[in-house]
Amino acid sequence: MECMIYLQSGEEIKTFRVIKQILKEKQNQKKQMIKILNRFVRIQKFNNNYLKNINNNQNFFSIHQKYLNHFSRKMAESKYYLTKDETCDYLKSINFEFKRYDHEPCFNVEDMQKYLKLEKAPLIKNIFYQDKKGNYYLVVAKHDTKVEKTLWRQVNLAPGNMRLATDEKLEAILKVKRGHVNPFALVNDTEKLVKALIIDEHLKKEEYWAFHPMDNSACIEFKQSEFQKFIDAIGRTFVHVRLDLNEEEEKKLAEQAKKETAKVEEAGHTKLGIEVKKDQDLSEWYKQVITKSELIEYYDISGCYILRPHAYAIWEIIQRFFDDIIKGFDVQNAYFPMFVTDKALNKEKEHVEGFSPEVAWVTRSGSTDLPEPIAVRPTSETIMYPAYSKWIKSHRDLPLKLNQWTNVVRWEFKDPTPFIRTREFLWQEGHTAHATDAEATEFTYLIQDQYRRVYEELLAVPVIKGIKSENEKFPGAYFSSTIETCIPSNGRAVQAATSHHLGQNFSKIFDISFLDGDQKKQFAYQTSWGLTTRTIGVMVLYHGDDKGLVLPPLVASTQVIIVPIIKTGADNKRVLDRASELKDELKKAGIRVQIDVRDNQTSGWKYNHWEVKGIPLRFEIGQMDIDKNQVTAVWRVNSHKEVIPNENIVETTKLRLKEIQDLMLTNAKQKFNEKLKPAGTWPEFMTALNSRCIVYTPWCNEIACEKSVKERSALESKGTENESGLSGSAKTLCIPNEQEPITEGTKCFSCGKAALKRVYWGRSY
Amino acid sequence: MECMIYLQSGEEIKTFRVIKQILKEKQNQKKQMIKILNRFVRIQKFNNNYLKNINNNQNFFSIHQKYLNHFSRKMAESKYYLTKDETCDYLKSINFEFKRYDHEPCFNVEDMQKYLKLEKAPLIKNIFYQDKKGNYYLVVAKHDTKVEKTLWRQVNLAPGNMRLATDEKLEAILKVKRGHVNPFALVNDTEKLVKALIIDEHLKKEEYWAFHPMDNSACIEFKQSEFQKFIDAIGRTFVHVRLDLNEEEEKKLAEQAKKETAKVEEAGHTKLGIEVKKDQDLSEWYKQVITKSELIEYYDISGCYILRPHAYAIWEIIQRFFDDIIKGFDVQNAYFPMFVTDKALNKEKEHVEGFSPEVAWVTRSGSTDLPEPIAVRPTSETIMYPAYSKWIKSHRDLPLKLNQWTNVVRWEFKDPTPFIRTREFLWQEGHTAHATDAEATEFTYLIQDQYRRVYEELLAVPVIKGIKSENEKFPGAYFSSTIETCIPSNGRAVQAATSHHLGQNFSKIFDISFLDGDQKKQFAYQTSWGLTTRTIGVMVLYHGDDKGLVLPPLVASTQVIIVPIIKTGADNKRVLDRASELKDELKKAGIRVQIDVRDNQTSGWKYNHWEVKGIPLRFEIGQMDIDKNQVTAVWRVNSHKEVIPNENIVETTKLRLKEIQDLMLTNAKQKFNEKLKPAGTWPEFMTALNSRCIVYTPWCNEIACEKSVKERSALESKGTENESGLSGSAKTLCIPNEQEPITEGTKCFSCGKAALKRVYWGRSY
Repeated sequence: MECMIYLQSGEEIKTFRVIKQILKEKQNQKKQMIKILNRFVRIQKFNNNYLKNINNNQNFFSIHQKYLNHFSRKMAESKYYLTKDETCDYLKSINFEFKRYDHEPCFNVEDMQKYLKLEKAPLIKNIFYQDKKGNYYLVVAKHDTKVEKTLWRQVNLAPGNMRLATDEKLEAILKVKRGHVNPFALVNDTEKLVKALIIDEHLKKEEYWAFHPMDNSACIEFKQSEFQKFIDAIGRTFVHVRLDLNEEEEKKLAEQAKKETAKVEEAGHTKLGIEVKKDQDLSEWYKQVITKSELIEYYDISGCYILRPHAYAIWEIIQRFFDDIIKGFDVQNAYFPMFVTDKALNKEKEHVEGFSPEVAWVTRSGSTDLPEPIAVRPTSETIMYPAYSKWIKSHRDLPLKLNQWTNVVRWEFKDPTPFIRTREFLWQEGHTAHATDAEATEFTYLIQDQYRRVYEELLAVPVIKGIKSENEKFPGAYFSSTIETCIPSNGRAVQAATSHHLGQNFSKIFDISFLDGDQKKQFAYQTSWGLTTRTIGVMVLYHGDDKGLVLPPLVASTQVIIVPIIKTGADNKRVLDRASELKDELKKAGIRVQIDVRDNQTSGWKYNHWEVKGIPLRFEIGQMDIDKNQVTAVWRVNSHKEVIPNENIVETTKLRLKEIQDLMLTNAKQKFNEKLKPAGTWPEFMTALNSRCIVYTPWCNEIACEKSVKERSALESKGTENESGLSGSAKTLCIPNEQEPITEGTKCFSCGKAALKRVYWGRSY
Repeated sequence: MECMIYLQSGEEIKTFRVIKQILKEKQNQKKQMIKILNRFVRIQKFNNNYLKNINNNQNFFSIHQKYLNHFSRKMAESKYYLTKDETCDYLKSINFEFKRYDHEPCFNVEDMQKYLKLEKAPLIKNIFYQDKKGNYYLVVAKHDTKVEKTLWRQVNLAPGNMRLATDEKLEAILKVKRGHVNPFALVNDTEKLVKALIIDEHLKKEEYWAFHPMDNSACIEFKQSEFQKFIDAIGRTFVHVRLDLNEEEEKKLAEQAKKETAKVEEAGHTKLGIEVKKDQDLSEWYKQVITKSELIEYYDISGCYILRPHAYAIWEIIQRFFDDIIKGFDVQNAYFPMFVTDKALNKEKEHVEGFSPEVAWVTRSGSTDLPEPIAVRPTSETIMYPAYSKWIKSHRDLPLKLNQWTNVVRWEFKDPTPFIRTREFLWQEGHTAHATDAEATEFTYLIQDQYRRVYEELLAVPVIKGIKSENEKFPGAYFSSTIETCIPSNGRAVQAATSHHLGQNFSKIFDISFLDGDQKKQFAYQTSWGLTTRTIGVMVLYHGDDKGLVLPPLVASTQVIIVPIIKTGADNKRVLDRASELKDELKKAGIRVQIDVRDNQTSGWKYNHWEVKGIPLRFEIGQMDIDKNQVTAVWRVNSHKEVIPNENIVETTKLRLKEIQDLMLTNAKQKFNEKLKPAGTWPEFMTALNSRCIVYTPWCNEIACEKSVKERSALESKGTENESGLSGSAKTLCIPNEQEPITEGTKCFSCGKAALKRVYWGRSY
């Protein structure tokens, strides 16, 4: 018997609490569903596979009733050891392909050599370690690999702390007895006490592997690539490590590695360029561009990244631009604490439900537990508004307009992507309070338009201004205005920035009230709005090309790079002097300019280097250029090469930077427009969507209809996954501010009711 | 028997781990001490009094062996109820004065009325509540107070969640039986499950109170003021609440309160001024100045404060000033994650020992425990340096100079003070790596001098440049340079900013190495340096006066406030027009100017308002001023009043702002110099120290000597505590960069060994 459970929206599901909620709403099947779900939650502790399935297949997941009952019964028992048959059944349930061998029990390599006749896989041994702190490690080695203690240093652990785990621990954690240890047993480590699964580097070369299915009287032989299915199913990872390195070799290798990278760099032979085409593999391309252009350094906490100076300088330019604008609107900067109490955070119900699964909690300082856990801000409504309540008493205290530039934390479960979706990010958040609804509305849209300016004027990224559907608005908002764009290369929609009208939702809860001119108590109307470092990621994705980053001149911390062409035997001093003189001249005129005088790199290497970094204009100065009283200029955006006479070079440079900026916006707009497709019917909609576009449709503007579109679009695109992974559900992006009126009789493209609005749909980041 | 335990330095002791460490070092008494300490740690859970004693008496604390054994035995028992005798003994041990009455057991108010004959205290009833979440609340009421459920809303709790606690919980938590409930029983709530002790507002008026000493057959009568001793001893607080408010009254009161504050403000009658003199009570003065001038709003998490726009604007000016300077030194800004793993944090031993007791740990997201706790940065050495190791390979990669402007968290146990000592604060932290020791040394001092400029040139606060003693240097540093100042009003020394030479301590641990010109591996020399929002607090403490804040013009976000004098029946338009015209004129010239055109406040109120906020110059413009073609100007710093002709008013204003800035520095230097006292001998030293000065002495520069000075100075000043609480141990502030050479034969003022250096000592914030 198989029980299908229907989910509203796979994409939104992050916790089981949410699933439960959805099921609760489906009254007709309620009791039975809840019963199954309760079992399911227990099962989830046993293995994460079902959760994975939800995320991948998005709309349905199936639970084999057989397993449900079985597992939940077994889990309830205090001591439970999976049998080899059960293990094989389990592997089949996750589509893990293998061949099974039954044999005499094998307690060591000798036994295996005697009893085991595998076709393709080598013999494998498993060793289970523990350290002093109660962490465990499973090491999987080829039978003839000598396991040296150097292995621990390769994974940054101290060899001195490691010893073989006791039988007691082995049974408690892996739920197998001595002699039966095998990697599948990690399925039993529900507490994740096993911190690492370490697999012999030598096994990497082997096409087939074989492990015991919990029991040393059988073996499971499988293609190495299958193993990832199991690893994904249990929500784990593993590392390959050289296990047989003796200390001398280890030392030698370390020294060599350092020397070689240094030498390579010294000699100018670093692999500078981007090794994959943007069209072929956007996500790998993105990763290479942001690291090789020195925007980002990866960090050892998932979802957190280092913003290197080249990236932070862009953020500083965006900050200065936007900060000047809002100060012109009498917005003042302030700083509110990063921490918030549970009580304050929980005041606005919708709001907290929107954020609580992602909130990071501080529970101790040093080794002392805090009396109450405190949250790290995911946003600051609940931090600021108690103070607003104190400060606002009379209509004369309004409007109150504050802004802060801070870091915030949202511990999201979706895959992190630098700039685009990170667990800590930088942003500004503005919070205003007004006496009237109209004033708050006006301010919401005023800020929306400033966000458009940041994207279009600074970053050369076109956006659509609109408002969010009821489904997609900010938790706790009256309505959310937004600017939306779409990455041309893969058609993914991106929410670029939002400005919310909060109505009186928060002011009534936090008592942000004032006496009006007639001494009557009124509640304030509020707005909140935020712009994040996502800006930088969108800009990279939009403009970057196969050679690397392409920076719009206005946000480039270096707008012009001067490369003096140095040749052996030539009058290099003359070239260097002219280059330096030009640099000073441009700098004096406010142009952000650098000069590359390194004597250990070739000009070609330098061109490449600054192209990867996206510098808008390159000036090459050689002997001939000096003779001819000129520089040779190359535009990063289109490789256009031209000669610029020294006369009026400052003005020409300024003009070129402006031309490049304009050209980038024009190009971007053209690409963006190609991504906008109208659709009047469902088939048109799906065709447009599956051609990697965002789709513009007449719509009934009903919550239920949007939910249905999400489900149908995901369902109907199942199986159409392509390399860039663009399947899954579509959601509304925005109802554009400006749209032609709906003519009488126009129908919603999906449900067929009368259309009220036109709306954009897309698959989003 | 009484066992005296000798401590090295009371001031530094923050955790018991530290005490243990110190005791471990005292080898001769080691075993016995540890044994006592181990008991002590258990006792501490029982009551915090001993810890308090340490902090107050600083050098010694005594443990009554009797209690130690007794308590530790009792605590070990699973069910332990204190007897009335033990309770009385305990109260005596914390110097709690009371009168004891023994009587028939009293289970209710009727019993008490029958059996109890107290001399001064009213009869009191105790009620123990619990909510749905497992929190408990103890309510203490006068016998005739009707306890209404409105009480909960007054402490921001939902009445609907509250019910009487069960007998089982009562016994488990308070360790008393039904009928014996009393506030002293909080001593048993070691888990702090009782979230609030709520005391009847009506009891506030009573000079005497009386509670059962755990047993309802006795009563303890005492002066209300004694109760604080008990509350401090157990590390608790309590609140007074109106318990007998019915719902109608509650509603009426709430409306009234809001209306009244608004009305008062509307009518311009707010208590604007500072109500205490700076000389009389510096800490209350400080609190009033920072709140009334609208720099700070208090927040509901201890040690965290809201920086209001008036404060944040100062920080922005400091940021711009310092950021421009360091960018001139080719320092680049970046942003590193706020979170750090345990492993990275623990790499440098000295460093982590310096910070670990203060580190805030995030252990879960939403309701999911993180696999490993992650720390919130207290500083970023351990976050940045693994990346430095990746980036630095060749001598050509050096110097690397990065800076970031961030928030950091140090969960300190000392009393927090806004700006001066806060758990979250804003700062910049710079981190550089250099090829040579000399270069790193030079850069350390270069930054030190920029910090001096921030204080002296911007904030008009004089400082001394020096280096820290071995005892006081940054954990992990090779040496720490510092700038030090002293608050003239109370003689407290303040560490204003530090710039550290880290030597190769971190580079060797994090492998920040490079190949030099000869292809040889070398470790980098590093510096780190930080400037915090403490700057603002020091500036407030230095310049503020009895009327409020006094801002140096260079950091004032408003330098000139224009007050048009509006009179009924006069030609106000003319005045307003002229004021507005002048504002535009000054603004155009880059002067930060505001105009106060409010029509609901008197001119007097406005003068007062802007004086509290510390605006350097006030321009008053009345009819007469216009007739005479002038403005009347008032200097905030010294109330100097003058007439400025309209002719050349922009230049005159600029000149005045400069004069005020210079005058403030001159005044400050004079006050500072009065605080510097030389001393050649111990008696001279103590006299100078106790006259609220910082003391300049010849010194042997030995760690042991500094420790001894700390102990002796604290011991000898015991009992000399005065209102501003200036007793306690002195420590070195810095060995000044510039000092006259030590002449042959000069002795250390303390230990009498040959002096090597001159050094400043003080009692510090």
